[in-house]
Amino acid sequence: MSRFLSGGCWRAARSRARRPCLWGAPRGAAGGPGCVRGTPAGALELPGEPDKFGGVSVHLARLGALDRLDLAACQRGLQAAIQKWRSEGRTAIWLHIPILQSRWIAPAASLGFCFHHAEADSATLTLWLGEGPSRLPAYATHQVGVAGAVFDENTRKILVVQDRNKLKNMWKFPGGLSEPGEDLGDTAVREVFEETGIKSEFRSLLSIRQQHSSPGAFGKSDMYIICRLKPYSFTINFCQHECVRCEWMDLSDLVKTENTTPITRRVARLLLYGYKEGFDKIDLTMEELPAIYTGLFYKLYHKALPENYKAMRGIN
Amino acid sequence: MSRFLSGGCWRAARSRARRPCLWGAPRGAAGGPGCVRGTPAGALELPGEPDKFGGVSVHLARLGALDRLDLAACQRGLQAAIQKWRSEGRTAIWLHIPILQSRWIAPAASLGFCFHHAEADSATLTLWLGEGPSRLPAYATHQVGVAGAVFDENTRKILVVQDRNKLKNMWKFPGGLSEPGEDLGDTAVREVFEETGIKSEFRSLLSIRQQHSSPGAFGKSDMYIICRLKPYSFTINFCQHECVRCEWMDLSDLVKTENTTPITRRVARLLLYGYKEGFDKIDLTMEELPAIYTGLFYKLYHKALPENYKAMRGIN
Repeated sequence: MSRFLSGGCWRAARSRARRPCLWGAPRGAAGGPGCVRGTPAGALELPGEPDKFGGVSVHLARLGALDRLDLAACQRGLQAAIQKWRSEGRTAIWLHIPILQSRWIAPAASLGFCFHHAEADSATLTLWLGEGPSRLPAYATHQVGVAGAVFDENTRKILVVQDRNKLKNMWKFPGGLSEPGEDLGDTAVREVFEETGIKSEFRSLLSIRQQHSSPGAFGKSDMYIICRLKPYSFTINFCQHECVRCEWMDLSDLVKTENTTPITRRVARLLLYGYKEGFDKIDLTMEELPAIYTGLFYKLYHKALPENYKAMRGIN
Repeated sequence: MSRFLSGGCWRAARSRARRPCLWGAPRGAAGGPGCVRGTPAGALELPGEPDKFGGVSVHLARLGALDRLDLAACQRGLQAAIQKWRSEGRTAIWLHIPILQSRWIAPAASLGFCFHHAEADSATLTLWLGEGPSRLPAYATHQVGVAGAVFDENTRKILVVQDRNKLKNMWKFPGGLSEPGEDLGDTAVREVFEETGIKSEFRSLLSIRQQHSSPGAFGKSDMYIICRLKPYSFTINFCQHECVRCEWMDLSDLVKTENTTPITRRVARLLLYGYKEGFDKIDLTMEELPAIYTGLFYKLYHKALPENYKAMRGIN
């Protein structure tokens, strides 16, 4: 599916549980393209940048003289632009508003715009002009947390912590939320170091959890990934802001203790299985592959594929 | 790590690449708690709701008479509230603003508030009052897309499509973005049906891709998951809005064709390996487990764990 016009096929009308906009977009008076300037009717002409998906974007930060315009003129200008772009068959308007120009937001909302997202010093509002329900792609829907199961094969010990800010102090693997743009293994290694002082390196991805309505996710969903890490330092120096305890625990104790979470117990047993029968039984290995459209690379995790299958040598 | 105060240990000062707020928060005039009402000084008193993490929330939607207040009074009230909560040792202020009250946003920004997030008809701004850089948890950082590798073991055929909105029309698995609150397997089954008309059921999770700076992710990251699905209908009726072609293709052709993406080719080869040597070699199985803090359930995916390890029977 295209990431720019999401789903919503002609065959399968969606019944998405989206929060509604405040109003439908009314038809406004006629307007024209060009730079921002006053018109004889007291509106302003709003320049839009078309995109290849049928939408048009307006970046208020790129326009001058906004501070001198009154809100009524802004609203008339926006209304005229909506009518023009609708008549041209545009499917959507994206309105990018710097936080200090937020006085534009309520007038835009009264014309049918909703928040698409906002972060730091900028908000993006959208108005769907196409047929049927909006097919614009949603903003990010998931937090991503990553924990590190740091296992020392020589001693059969595993690194566990008890969080400070939890009601029940149960043993678990150190971890935390991904930073923007951070790879999963890097998050695990960083969080383990920050919480426990232990240095480690990424070995594999072990499990993926998806949870909805997770507390602290602001109504969004949560993806929680546990990685297998190999330690290369062993002296614990744990973060007293985040943890109340931190230990190297015998894996055979962690798999049996009641004082842990179901997911920690499960992954501890998975690790024990891997330790006894070979980590290839439990590991998802990582490889970088090229993204064909962007020229960038991404990281792909799956069960190891034997080389003859990877290269299709001797396979029919 | 706690999801409410993220990372940022006393030992490990973060150097996060966050976009800066516009200004630091200046110290304002004194103010007091209570309902919204005018004060002799012409400010307003702003009621805040403390949370257990040291923050305080203000919900403008719960306050009355906002429309009658002028912005200068709003700003003085907010400034007084900031000073009060800072002096009480509060670590953060969360300001929830309905879209039609967006005239509050710019004055709040001039006192140091930034957008934390916004969606539909509401924005949330934050101001960090604690020491050092903000330790507030970030909003959702990832889009989640899910594709279905629908494989018919009886015919050794796999369901593939060519997207309409791509520059290069390469064979790939049908899929799309998760709806809010939707489980991974459900997204795969839904997207496969919407794009191709084929009904299927979830079998396993095969691979996870993480990609940053992905186009269409609004600057956020992208998690793309491929599931193995088993078909139970076979007549293709594909969505002509989304696809230009849809076929049941011999798996042995897909593993060899040049006209596909690297990830599709890789997962096709993984499927061939599973088909020939047993799907247990490649599958991540799914199980529901209880979340101990919320009483909810979540779905956990990992390599199948033998029953004796799961129950720790006969394992030492």
